[in-house]
Amino acid sequence: MIDLGSAAVIGLGLIGGSVARDLHARGLAVRGWDSDPAALQAAVRDGVVEPLPAALAGLREVDLVVLAVPVRSTLELLGPLAERVSDRTVVMDVGSTKRSAVSEAVRAGIGTRFVGSHPLAGDTRSGWDASRTGLFEGERIFITPTHQTEERAADLVSRMWQAFGARPQRIDPYEHDRLMAWISHAPQALSTVLGLALSDAGIAPSDLGSGGRGAIRLAASSSGMWADILADNSEEVARALHSILSRLGSLTAAVERGDVTELERLLRTSRSWATTET
Amino acid sequence: MIDLGSAAVIGLGLIGGSVARDLHARGLAVRGWDSDPAALQAAVRDGVVEPLPAALAGLREVDLVVLAVPVRSTLELLGPLAERVSDRTVVMDVGSTKRSAVSEAVRAGIGTRFVGSHPLAGDTRSGWDASRTGLFEGERIFITPTHQTEERAADLVSRMWQAFGARPQRIDPYEHDRLMAWISHAPQALSTVLGLALSDAGIAPSDLGSGGRGAIRLAASSSGMWADILADNSEEVARALHSILSRLGSLTAAVERGDVTELERLLRTSRSWATTET
Repeated sequence: MIDLGSAAVIGLGLIGGSVARDLHARGLAVRGWDSDPAALQAAVRDGVVEPLPAALAGLREVDLVVLAVPVRSTLELLGPLAERVSDRTVVMDVGSTKRSAVSEAVRAGIGTRFVGSHPLAGDTRSGWDASRTGLFEGERIFITPTHQTEERAADLVSRMWQAFGARPQRIDPYEHDRLMAWISHAPQALSTVLGLALSDAGIAPSDLGSGGRGAIRLAASSSGMWADILADNSEEVARALHSILSRLGSLTAAVERGDVTELERLLRTSRSWATTET
Repeated sequence: MIDLGSAAVIGLGLIGGSVARDLHARGLAVRGWDSDPAALQAAVRDGVVEPLPAALAGLREVDLVVLAVPVRSTLELLGPLAERVSDRTVVMDVGSTKRSAVSEAVRAGIGTRFVGSHPLAGDTRSGWDASRTGLFEGERIFITPTHQTEERAADLVSRMWQAFGARPQRIDPYEHDRLMAWISHAPQALSTVLGLALSDAGIAPSDLGSGGRGAIRLAASSSGMWADILADNSEEVARALHSILSRLGSLTAAVERGDVTELERLLRTSRSWATTET
């Protein structure tokens, strides 16, 4: 089903761990590494991976390397990694931003064999313990080849995701990052901001009703991973947040005036968008 | 279980309809009215209520009147209602703001028999068709007597909610409105604003992942009802939104600078609040 003999997964968190489990479940020899020795031990103990001797050692024999580390670590690892893989090895990442990873892969000289991937299968939970077989079933996966990527490499990665039951979809890395700023990064930032303001006001999470709980759900996401994402996609996220600031300023002014007509117009416009069937 | 012979429910939407259904299910004679003739017809056809001859007619014989209309309509109805009920009739509302309703009830001369209620059992769906028996089971209900409310009236209302399986909890109406601004009204405003900004950017709701979908869920709420609530609780909501604007401004600046350290600090602070067990 997947035309692969062996694979290595660097980073055994929610996403990397689930990729390793899905590869293992399909009979592949999977090697793994994690900066947290306990996570690596658990993955070995669970029989899912054989440990790599070090982060970037023992990669020359594998057909596919999956980088499943925070965005900033991906950018740091691509250069050293390029010198430690064979000419045939396909390299992919799974980060939430794609422009910087694609550029860095080209700079590192592995542009022909690099395939950016972004599974839209996040969770507020993280780590090996949160990983599971089947995490990607039915989920959308954005695939961003570089301008040099060979078709066999892009194909291999697409087929791997399809074998996991996911729906790979190719997209330009710039367009990807702009879209993500709106549909994922800005909502994350808003949830974080709401958590900060509620905390300032002395409100406890347990005070929230179901609507409020939904609004702060993303605030529980991994802070290190998200700091990287927001900084890496700085330009697009800032653009989205400025637009939100402007809309929030107008709505706040309407609230202050007690302007029911304007409030109803704003609420209706947003509702009509949110309830669009597409 | 409930010490009531008969009740009238004015407004047969999600909340009023569900109150009428729960009262009817416990053997009470329930009279009902709705400004939408189709909703009233449906409630009569479903055998839940007998129709009142008009909005405020036929109320003299009932033991309890439940006002389940938008906040602004409650304020408009309390005066006329006061002249049409008996000295024994207990009057309650179910609105999302409590300060204005409690003041208006006192001004209308029914302060001894008025009991503000606010069930935290909203839904983005609305109308008679969304109402159901058991909607309030396990839900928190804020009860706000006026400073004149007789204990027998407050007790009657509390026992009614308990009979529905809900958890009534007394609170000062000012404290209620401040709390709601934070845990319900500001999250609603943020979700509305996110919907407006996403719509401005040409994003479709179907583009969103699960995190984004959660963040815009509230944007689908009833716009008329929410315009009333935001305007009625103007002062407290504006205070909350200003605090959010300030926090969002700082986070946006950190994104623009690509300041990973500051972003991680903000994300971690919010995360640590959001994951507090209380």
